[in-house]
Amino acid sequence: MNKVLITGAYGFIGRHVAREYSSRGWHVTGIGHGEWSNWHDYGLTEWHKADVTLDSLLTLSNYPDVIIHCAGGASVGFSVEQPAIDFDLTVRTTSNVLEFIRLYSPSTKLVYPSSAAVYGQVEALPITEDMPLNPVSPYGTHKQMSEILCQLYSRQYNLSVAIVRMFSIYGPELRKQLLWDACQKLHQDDYAFFGTGEEIRDWLHVDDVSKLLYVASQNATVDCPVVNAGKGMGVKVKNILEQLCGQYESNIKPTFSSTFKPGDPNAYISDISKASAWGWTPLVNWQEGISEYVDWYNKCQKFE
Amino acid sequence: MNKVLITGAYGFIGRHVAREYSSRGWHVTGIGHGEWSNWHDYGLTEWHKADVTLDSLLTLSNYPDVIIHCAGGASVGFSVEQPAIDFDLTVRTTSNVLEFIRLYSPSTKLVYPSSAAVYGQVEALPITEDMPLNPVSPYGTHKQMSEILCQLYSRQYNLSVAIVRMFSIYGPELRKQLLWDACQKLHQDDYAFFGTGEEIRDWLHVDDVSKLLYVASQNATVDCPVVNAGKGMGVKVKNILEQLCGQYESNIKPTFSSTFKPGDPNAYISDISKASAWGWTPLVNWQEGISEYVDWYNKCQKFE
Repeated sequence: MNKVLITGAYGFIGRHVAREYSSRGWHVTGIGHGEWSNWHDYGLTEWHKADVTLDSLLTLSNYPDVIIHCAGGASVGFSVEQPAIDFDLTVRTTSNVLEFIRLYSPSTKLVYPSSAAVYGQVEALPITEDMPLNPVSPYGTHKQMSEILCQLYSRQYNLSVAIVRMFSIYGPELRKQLLWDACQKLHQDDYAFFGTGEEIRDWLHVDDVSKLLYVASQNATVDCPVVNAGKGMGVKVKNILEQLCGQYESNIKPTFSSTFKPGDPNAYISDISKASAWGWTPLVNWQEGISEYVDWYNKCQKFE
Repeated sequence: MNKVLITGAYGFIGRHVAREYSSRGWHVTGIGHGEWSNWHDYGLTEWHKADVTLDSLLTLSNYPDVIIHCAGGASVGFSVEQPAIDFDLTVRTTSNVLEFIRLYSPSTKLVYPSSAAVYGQVEALPITEDMPLNPVSPYGTHKQMSEILCQLYSRQYNLSVAIVRMFSIYGPELRKQLLWDACQKLHQDDYAFFGTGEEIRDWLHVDDVSKLLYVASQNATVDCPVVNAGKGMGVKVKNILEQLCGQYESNIKPTFSSTFKPGDPNAYISDISKASAWGWTPLVNWQEGISEYVDWYNKCQKFE
């Protein structure tokens, strides 16, 4: 039976990836932070509540065929407030995972879910993987540093690695960011949003990214390929929020403050030809994805 | 009285920088690893034998006006054998120093002595600071990651930082690398060297780099300038070794294995216009520098 280790399995991406591997018949081990008892529901066979260190990885009974290293800082705002903690969560855990593979399990393939935040301010669209990296926040900078470590270990020690740069991932279980905040506001009859609404993002459903992370593990090599994970198209924040408001059967339209967040890029659209060349295609369209998200939000509100 | 903190003050560069600041009337504190009792001879007013951590930095009685962060991994070979230790020595200590400045001493200026190893394989000469970074070894990669951290803190938290990329620094007290190995070989009547002898390096005397690190602290800003530290000219390894053999008043010339070290660049020559624009000029010519080195080597052999 194939074995996958998912670090940060409690998190939004981690739990969906766990389900993806489980549905394919893999033995799924999770490690990381988080208080939950229902990890079986996400396809996990084992759950280890622990920091991602060399010592904690060595306690695992079976060394995995694949590691999906989802653990890491998960908030730009937090990374600005606590850069040293974000550094530890993101860069040091990556160093620990790479060192574990190098020393104890060199045939394990590693997939590193990075972020489009590594691109920072971009000068041309769509964004291809070979564009220069100019991250703005500590979050994006630490992701870049983790990528550099992956490339180093891949090149120097022949580890098989793949890097997946995730654009705006959304879907059920995401309890932060635009869609979550919007649902919370609408339940309080608040329709006023920050920004201009003209900001363009590349929205990718979490089921699509989970499939891509699986495909990436099959394509991990010592050349450490890097692929974008997006839908390959941009949708304005305004359109996303209008669609979301529409789900509430009200005629009210969102309004915007028209202010800019410094450092927030105006438009992010991915070029996904590299991931497509692996035979991966994103399937969920954003209107369906938002409808599903609102259904999930309303359901989870009822139970809380 | 101005106060400077030199991390890694026991090391080759560190002790020379200490002497430079001391000669300018500064209060010089050193911190790092190393067993020595003669640190007074290098101009240190205080010596703290400790890891460079947030805690150890907080025990300093006076917060410094300037930090020269010389601590870090110091060997390419070691970094290949022990990448995680090299990561801690280089990247984590840099993170600790930056965090100390951000939280407790934001007006302190930081100078980061980086390395030409961040350039890796280069396609054109002379090397300018804006060329792409393609480090080969863990050593060079960790230096690059430390630079990225410096730039992050500078940009995000308005820290005043300057980065100095050192080429082939040599001089008295350097007890490793080409000149040291060569002196040891010649004392054993061994004149056979590895490589082709045609490799070109940019040799800079440690007194010149010490002065540049001082000048860099005066030019550290939130824009985090990066300057090369070289002589701005290349000399073949063959010529260096012939000069060195000449000091021994023998007619024997060095011979070479003619083999290549994979990943070793054929030629490194720095463009030093950026450092020159700060009013810095390297003064020691290489023939004099090698003559001084051999004198130092012979003297220290007598006392050991």
